[in-house]
Amino acid sequence: MPEEKNMKTLALLGATGSIGTQALEVVRQQPGRFRVAVLSAQRQWELLAQQAREFRPAVVVIGDESAYQNLKSALADQPETEVLAGPAALAEVVTRPEIDIVLTALVGYAGLLPTVAAIRAGKDIALANKETLVVAGELITGLIKKHNVRLLPVDSEHSAIFQCLVGEEQNPIEKIILTASGGPFRGRSAQQMEAVTKAQALKHPNWDMGAKITIDSASLMNKGLEVIEAKWLFGLTNEQIDVVVHPQSIVHSLVQFEDGSLKAQLGLPDMKLPIQYALGYPQRLANTFPRFSFLDYPTLTFEAPDRVAFPNLELAFGAMRRGGNAPCVLNAANEVAVAAFLREQVGFRQMSDLVAECLARVSYLAEPILADLVATDAETRRLAAQLIMN
Amino acid sequence: MPEEKNMKTLALLGATGSIGTQALEVVRQQPGRFRVAVLSAQRQWELLAQQAREFRPAVVVIGDESAYQNLKSALADQPETEVLAGPAALAEVVTRPEIDIVLTALVGYAGLLPTVAAIRAGKDIALANKETLVVAGELITGLIKKHNVRLLPVDSEHSAIFQCLVGEEQNPIEKIILTASGGPFRGRSAQQMEAVTKAQALKHPNWDMGAKITIDSASLMNKGLEVIEAKWLFGLTNEQIDVVVHPQSIVHSLVQFEDGSLKAQLGLPDMKLPIQYALGYPQRLANTFPRFSFLDYPTLTFEAPDRVAFPNLELAFGAMRRGGNAPCVLNAANEVAVAAFLREQVGFRQMSDLVAECLARVSYLAEPILADLVATDAETRRLAAQLIMN
Repeated sequence: MPEEKNMKTLALLGATGSIGTQALEVVRQQPGRFRVAVLSAQRQWELLAQQAREFRPAVVVIGDESAYQNLKSALADQPETEVLAGPAALAEVVTRPEIDIVLTALVGYAGLLPTVAAIRAGKDIALANKETLVVAGELITGLIKKHNVRLLPVDSEHSAIFQCLVGEEQNPIEKIILTASGGPFRGRSAQQMEAVTKAQALKHPNWDMGAKITIDSASLMNKGLEVIEAKWLFGLTNEQIDVVVHPQSIVHSLVQFEDGSLKAQLGLPDMKLPIQYALGYPQRLANTFPRFSFLDYPTLTFEAPDRVAFPNLELAFGAMRRGGNAPCVLNAANEVAVAAFLREQVGFRQMSDLVAECLARVSYLAEPILADLVATDAETRRLAAQLIMN
Repeated sequence: MPEEKNMKTLALLGATGSIGTQALEVVRQQPGRFRVAVLSAQRQWELLAQQAREFRPAVVVIGDESAYQNLKSALADQPETEVLAGPAALAEVVTRPEIDIVLTALVGYAGLLPTVAAIRAGKDIALANKETLVVAGELITGLIKKHNVRLLPVDSEHSAIFQCLVGEEQNPIEKIILTASGGPFRGRSAQQMEAVTKAQALKHPNWDMGAKITIDSASLMNKGLEVIEAKWLFGLTNEQIDVVVHPQSIVHSLVQFEDGSLKAQLGLPDMKLPIQYALGYPQRLANTFPRFSFLDYPTLTFEAPDRVAFPNLELAFGAMRRGGNAPCVLNAANEVAVAAFLREQVGFRQMSDLVAECLARVSYLAEPILADLVATDAETRRLAAQLIMN
């Protein structure tokens, strides 16, 4: 059992989602290692109440204020847990002094403001919300430096690269190679992609994830967002990032150094591993998760992504090269498009068209401050919603 | 150009062999980074003289004393380079004060004594002579600790593991996976192995190496020796070492940590990379060697080694488990067997029989000192030679 001083106190934002519940599974399997001080959810107050009963946090926050009374009543007999609601409460609770590390597992743009608040309060960030870096990478990495906190990636690809860079601080990166499963539609032509249904898009071959990221994986927008995330996490130029399709999802990503040597991190596709790595860093915590064996995976394959059938990858690279508020537009348009696709208001290919249209029409800002990004996000969402209505 | 203080002074033992000449190629491509103070060779005095003209070392040593006069004459007009001969000279020159790092690229057991001398003189060792650790792993690792020097592996597999362990000092290894190309006879049955010829055995599919190691690769004895080498290099138990056959030789080896995560080092099969890594450590030196691309290697495959057709792997694991002087017997018997095979005195499968017979007949010593190992080596060579004559 570790000593008390090694115990880390956690705030889990997005506790009821896929990453959040797996993070709690990690906490459960490492008794004495982590204390959960904050749990938050957007809408699922019943699961949040159940988690609060098990982990006894100091405070729970429900994003959707209309669910506050239900949550409050459910925890009426647990007075040591404070119950709060709304985004302002979320931005406040992450700054509390006892918190060491904030896991940002919220979905989409909603992760930005609490992440900024946590960094300003000197908290380490376990980043499971890639949209934060996509929208405001320059701003966030500036704050990370200024407040001297750690930004620990939770995405399996970025965790892989982070793990490969440990101990290599003095050795410049030549390039990184992000692996992509290719999703359920790998190998289909642009034309075949027209007929894709919501049910098909929600079936990811390797990873069990939330709806938004599963659709993004099927459209390769997820990889596009990860490319931009990687640029900021690892301080790369646009030319230093490659993507390779690797359908088995065993090699989680690679780094190539200036001597030509590559390092890769591998393992079964299980998000608990990168979550645990981020929470335990720099220590790897022993666990009993299933182990990878080459006997189960005798063949690993790699291929170039199809940038014609999957235009999102090019859109993302384009937005990254353009910089400024372009990645913010890309992300907001995509969030609206995915939500519309999940409501079956737009087809699969229309999602990319919508993003491209927004990138073409929203005013470009070369050096946006946080307020500009908030405005760009709002403007893009309005435009995207209009385009869907028409 | 790096500053003078970053320049490392090298002794290259075995300068005319495959590793030695590639090491000089690395030195050539990194002007201002390395100074060559010592070059040695066993017999190839002409090439050694030519290398001495280019690199102007303080001293050259020829192992074979009968070649001394030829070498001396060839360098008569280069008085700044001292010319010496014989094993005692070799053990002396590596201790000279200006030397920072000794690359031990001699073939076989001959590497042991100069390596011990260099460690005792406080030199870092770039170890390209795996037999040193196979024969005297416990003794060498004890000396390394006592004299607080670095033992930097040059074998591509061990370099891979070493690279994966950088920055992971606090994280225990769960196991390592050494990759093996499988050699030119992968897939053959035990019976098919009977008919193997010298010319076939000397054709390695991926690596261009010396004759001894090429035969060892074809028989999997090289992997067996590497298993024992890895045990000592990384302080592993016998159960922590796995071998997987990977015919493309791109993944050079892997480490699995206690959290189940694996790290691998990858690259084209080019010994200049691990040589440069060992000489430059901890810095990775930029170079213009060809780069790996997944587009050239879209499929990487992995399979269990065939321990029936290739009994050497089991013999090596057995000697490792037995410990004491058993690995020394394994190595000496194998050196004699390979030499006999190269003279076409024994068949391919007989090499394993010879090793097994020596392991069964040479007296076992549980805790040999250096003198015992020297005696075991001599006794085994005598026995093996007798067995070949009969």
